[in-house]
Amino acid sequence: MTQDLVRSLFAAEFDNSILDRMDDSATFELEGRLAFTTDCHVVSPYFFPGGDIGRLALTGTVNDLAMTGAFPLYVAAGFIIEEGFPRESLGRIARSMQEAAAEARVQVVAGDTKVVERGAADGIFITTSGLGLVPPGVNITGSAASPGDVVILSGTVGDHGVAVMSRREGMRFETAIESDCAPLGELVRRMLSASDRVRVLRDPTRGGLAAALNEIAASSGVAIEIDEASLPLKPEVGAACEVLGLDPLTLANEGKLVAMVDPEDAGRVLAAMKTSPMGAAAAVIGTVERADRPRVYVRTAAGSRRALMMPSGEQLPRIC
Amino acid sequence: MTQDLVRSLFAAEFDNSILDRMDDSATFELEGRLAFTTDCHVVSPYFFPGGDIGRLALTGTVNDLAMTGAFPLYVAAGFIIEEGFPRESLGRIARSMQEAAAEARVQVVAGDTKVVERGAADGIFITTSGLGLVPPGVNITGSAASPGDVVILSGTVGDHGVAVMSRREGMRFETAIESDCAPLGELVRRMLSASDRVRVLRDPTRGGLAAALNEIAASSGVAIEIDEASLPLKPEVGAACEVLGLDPLTLANEGKLVAMVDPEDAGRVLAAMKTSPMGAAAAVIGTVERADRPRVYVRTAAGSRRALMMPSGEQLPRIC
Repeated sequence: MTQDLVRSLFAAEFDNSILDRMDDSATFELEGRLAFTTDCHVVSPYFFPGGDIGRLALTGTVNDLAMTGAFPLYVAAGFIIEEGFPRESLGRIARSMQEAAAEARVQVVAGDTKVVERGAADGIFITTSGLGLVPPGVNITGSAASPGDVVILSGTVGDHGVAVMSRREGMRFETAIESDCAPLGELVRRMLSASDRVRVLRDPTRGGLAAALNEIAASSGVAIEIDEASLPLKPEVGAACEVLGLDPLTLANEGKLVAMVDPEDAGRVLAAMKTSPMGAAAAVIGTVERADRPRVYVRTAAGSRRALMMPSGEQLPRIC
Repeated sequence: MTQDLVRSLFAAEFDNSILDRMDDSATFELEGRLAFTTDCHVVSPYFFPGGDIGRLALTGTVNDLAMTGAFPLYVAAGFIIEEGFPRESLGRIARSMQEAAAEARVQVVAGDTKVVERGAADGIFITTSGLGLVPPGVNITGSAASPGDVVILSGTVGDHGVAVMSRREGMRFETAIESDCAPLGELVRRMLSASDRVRVLRDPTRGGLAAALNEIAASSGVAIEIDEASLPLKPEVGAACEVLGLDPLTLANEGKLVAMVDPEDAGRVLAAMKTSPMGAAAAVIGTVERADRPRVYVRTAAGSRRALMMPSGEQLPRIC
């Protein structure tokens, strides 16, 4: 009976002609270079300011596709649900997932649901997989950063991390801090229309900007220097980080991207980003440098330079 | 640190040129009608006679692709792991998953891992997604069964269900009953080479043959009659079912398929199936009939006819 409820609920919410066939696989015609990705979502709590696990799962996967320059098209969703999980919460999650799908202009075409006994899972886990189409000529990869490239960040850092942490710890701030959880496909589309020299795109989720930049530096064999003063940061997020002893550079973001762009095109790309609501607060935050070994540096407000290390371990477990 | 271990372990096991790029998405060229599917695997225990959750997750997804007539190509795997899960077990699971991938001739090209705190998940859950290519002219769907079609089953029923149940309940039988967990792509390829009138393919997993046939009857608006005496069943599985009070028709299978085939081609398809180790025990088990409303019947050994209902609820939770 639970299975039937779940199926009818999801099928009604994600309604589309491909899903409706209810065969073992969804089928559709496609041609070109495809992008394919998967992500598990275990965020706790599953409702948080600015979003929930459904919105997060949808946008997380769509954004991973967009980070290869792909147009996101199709999503498959796997739900692992603890017995006794409130039907009303499941409905809210499915609805917010479908709302995010509509925003991102993708269809949820396949799914699976498993219910496990009480205590065998903590509420709900959602694993989403996505499929997108990379436009001809686009070749964006974490290993393509070149010395001289300009580093652009699409908006403020740390919003998602602080939003989830504050709800988890039952904290209240004077200003509500909301997750930035949002699909980035349209922003990427505008960037790629403005320049064919966007070399790297990455969404700084788990481990934040620190992890994303260290991964890129390692893949590309370069150093990256960012300027602390230029980093977009909401004052209330900065204040919360001070109270909680957190570094905004290591906090998860779920609606932001960092890009490495040829210096000649950086101005054009930045201007294109600012035409999108997702890139309104975009800023140049640093440059790529030649290096003997991969490194990330932060130029502090005081003018000194410190190494920004790969965050070790899981600083904030179950943040996404 | 856990994350690093996991990544290095999986990357080493699934080693291939697409995965190695370690970007946010895997990319590759494809053209045609694609099949796309996802499945969550929560089987308990995660090691069972004849397989484990890794082999199950890989073959389950590959088989869902094959059931649309697709050639399975790429798999993405999401792991949700409870803190403290033995590294050695994780290694065994990854290895058996890669062995199944090699058998099925697919590549694991994308993945994600989330570790949750002790008690937030029961050991390990694996959600796999798959992508395959449907050959031109192939149009296999659960809604295509026609009155007169012959129903073929590829082998014995209930092996997986009994194998998992017996391990879960700590039972010992004189003959070891092993899960049938295996990839079916090659079997399907042989069937489609023999006939272009294979109309329906379905792997009777959760809910067994009873669920699969009821789903097909409902999608196609037909009745299906199967002959109990013709049903391939291992004597030890039959005996275990009697002891446990289980109906083999409702038990999960993980390496079997049921097909609806035009009567003119049934002999040719059956012969082709028998050339594959996966179809050695294949048998004609029934026929599709015209009906006012969808129904599934079993002709018993005694000659009477009884309705085979959709199994209600989850008879054996966490069987796959």
